[in-house]
Amino acid sequence: MDLELLARLSVPNDTRILLLVIDGLGGAPNESGRSELEQADIQHLDLLARESMCGLTVPVAPGVTPGSGPGHLALFGYDPITYTVGRGVLEALGIDFDLQPQDVAARGNFCTVDTEGRITDRRAGRIPTEQTVPLCAILRDIRLPGVQAFVKPVRDHRFLLVLRGEGLSDAITETDPQREGVAPLPVRATAPEAEPTAKLLNEFVAQAGKLLRGHQPANMLTLRGFAKQPPMPSMPEACKLRAAAIAAYPMYRGLAKLVGMTVLKTGATFADEVQTLKENWDKFDFFFLHYKKADAAGEDGDFQAKMRALEEIDGYIAELHALQPEVMMVAGDHSTPAVVAGHSWHPVPFLLHARNFVRLDDTEGFNERACAHGTLGTFPAKEALSLAMAHAGRLTKYGA
Amino acid sequence: MDLELLARLSVPNDTRILLLVIDGLGGAPNESGRSELEQADIQHLDLLARESMCGLTVPVAPGVTPGSGPGHLALFGYDPITYTVGRGVLEALGIDFDLQPQDVAARGNFCTVDTEGRITDRRAGRIPTEQTVPLCAILRDIRLPGVQAFVKPVRDHRFLLVLRGEGLSDAITETDPQREGVAPLPVRATAPEAEPTAKLLNEFVAQAGKLLRGHQPANMLTLRGFAKQPPMPSMPEACKLRAAAIAAYPMYRGLAKLVGMTVLKTGATFADEVQTLKENWDKFDFFFLHYKKADAAGEDGDFQAKMRALEEIDGYIAELHALQPEVMMVAGDHSTPAVVAGHSWHPVPFLLHARNFVRLDDTEGFNERACAHGTLGTFPAKEALSLAMAHAGRLTKYGA
Repeated sequence: MDLELLARLSVPNDTRILLLVIDGLGGAPNESGRSELEQADIQHLDLLARESMCGLTVPVAPGVTPGSGPGHLALFGYDPITYTVGRGVLEALGIDFDLQPQDVAARGNFCTVDTEGRITDRRAGRIPTEQTVPLCAILRDIRLPGVQAFVKPVRDHRFLLVLRGEGLSDAITETDPQREGVAPLPVRATAPEAEPTAKLLNEFVAQAGKLLRGHQPANMLTLRGFAKQPPMPSMPEACKLRAAAIAAYPMYRGLAKLVGMTVLKTGATFADEVQTLKENWDKFDFFFLHYKKADAAGEDGDFQAKMRALEEIDGYIAELHALQPEVMMVAGDHSTPAVVAGHSWHPVPFLLHARNFVRLDDTEGFNERACAHGTLGTFPAKEALSLAMAHAGRLTKYGA
Repeated sequence: MDLELLARLSVPNDTRILLLVIDGLGGAPNESGRSELEQADIQHLDLLARESMCGLTVPVAPGVTPGSGPGHLALFGYDPITYTVGRGVLEALGIDFDLQPQDVAARGNFCTVDTEGRITDRRAGRIPTEQTVPLCAILRDIRLPGVQAFVKPVRDHRFLLVLRGEGLSDAITETDPQREGVAPLPVRATAPEAEPTAKLLNEFVAQAGKLLRGHQPANMLTLRGFAKQPPMPSMPEACKLRAAAIAAYPMYRGLAKLVGMTVLKTGATFADEVQTLKENWDKFDFFFLHYKKADAAGEDGDFQAKMRALEEIDGYIAELHALQPEVMMVAGDHSTPAVVAGHSWHPVPFLLHARNFVRLDDTEGFNERACAHGTLGTFPAKEALSLAMAHAGRLTKYGA
């Protein structure tokens, strides 16, 4: 159901919903014929699956590989094709940058170029955040006519660029050529009203090139994901619940903030996140708790590391279960099979554990094969929130 | 996903996709309790299913019995409710008639009427094409004010009528009463602007009746499926692939041409089609290969003949598999259970065999019962193309 209908049907209650998102949860078999979830020792998740309703979620549509944005928006109840969020906006929200409706935000990468200006390393050796901080300070010397430019470090080699001024447009192309051996691309306007913005950004890049010259390895930058903040309905308002987000990584905090959740301050580890959850358990009705490592291992194509990441999160399941939320979901924003070494289109294992009115299936464990036979079937991820709301006694009858 | 999104996400690659459509593939149990697929000896399809991802496709919507047009359009990635194609247009495209945007096309049937003008055989004893050719020549003597009338033999008792001129409309009713013992119906306009077209067609029918009088058994005709060519996006353009169609029967060639595929010249048998496939294997990225006999047997209500047809196509599976497409789909445009003796609404067995990133299920064979438990679940047929594109490495990520 869409958020407008959800808003019509939702009613207040004192029940709690916990959404645990294991980033990149879904996998695929390696040569052994079994997936990461099937091979990992995840006894607590397996046990929880046996006491839950299971299924597979389709994040966007069959065959579609989602980015992190659409994958999370769907789990927050949004149709990810109707509601789209640019990368620049996500980065801005994730570092608590106070983005204004007229701002254009971009994700910046420091990179390395050779003497001919050709990119030799798109990530400048993934320099640590400590090196990115002073580089961003240097870029703040750039002056552009009529607009303000904000440059903020994000993490590792990544930074945020925000232009603030009148008449800016995000109908422009990226400078990252997405491969090495070629120079960064100029920014081009894809609509006439974006010509001034493109010109300003090319001026920014030209000045940055001069300021960074001689720095190693980060002697140049690329910009992508130009975006303005999209208008979106508030998920906590639509659902009539107090929703909190707990995520160590900036982008996921940004997504949660965008949909109206309260973002809780937490530490850098998942143990910190769980601690934050416990400390705030009485203050909210809905918690989005994000676990990142499974995705990172899958992206690296490291089957064993992905198994270990799944085993790590499995070690927290009993503790989360002991909090006794009325509804606990274990979901993924998308699959990141190690054999793909990236996000993929494969449907994602899902379980919904509820205190009341559960139709148990015969799911033997929490994995792709077992969940494919679960009672929830294969269903759009955007429907998960409605199911949770129903089991939490937070939806009234539709129609007389 | 719709074709617009597919067009945004598709990227070129050198992978190949083979779509084998077994027309009327799906069946239903006879008194033995098992369907045609379950009783036939289809060892190669069963083996392929065990190495594939299986499921059931819903051609249009649950409970909806599709015609050949919607059934195929869905497998070509089109929403069959958004995109509709009239029978007349299909017939025109299928015989390589160069239809113009303003033309109104109709499917004609020669029929037999008694001395009172009542239809005694709606198909004139299914006269062979050789008899239809001279009858069409006779009808070319008909003159209508201000428009051209083209009359072309199709197959057996069927012919194509195309009116070409200014201001023609397809908002008109058919002359075929769909039963015997009554006279053909007059053409009526269902919109005011179609009055002139209706008048012209009634004049055509009146003159045809005079010209055919005395011919036996084809002494009259009926007209149905009046249609103009619908505007449709090109499937090969949206998917960025070179798509070829191989089909012995005109209508399926017509459908493929309508969506922008290259229609390859082939012979009258499926062996000819396979030969054509092999000869063109290096020239295209996507092949639509059509097998007709299963549908024909199902339409005849002949359970044994449908089993034999399925066994015949099973004999080609190893040969098709040996071509090693990156993705091979075995699908049906709709079900044609012998017990129904016609098309039906039942979901259709489907398998997708891919070289990479496959999540095998535990499907034991290729039939309705086994595929219902497949990892793909029961899903809209229009999503099959996206899945194939994903497994062929032809879709990029959606969203940041």
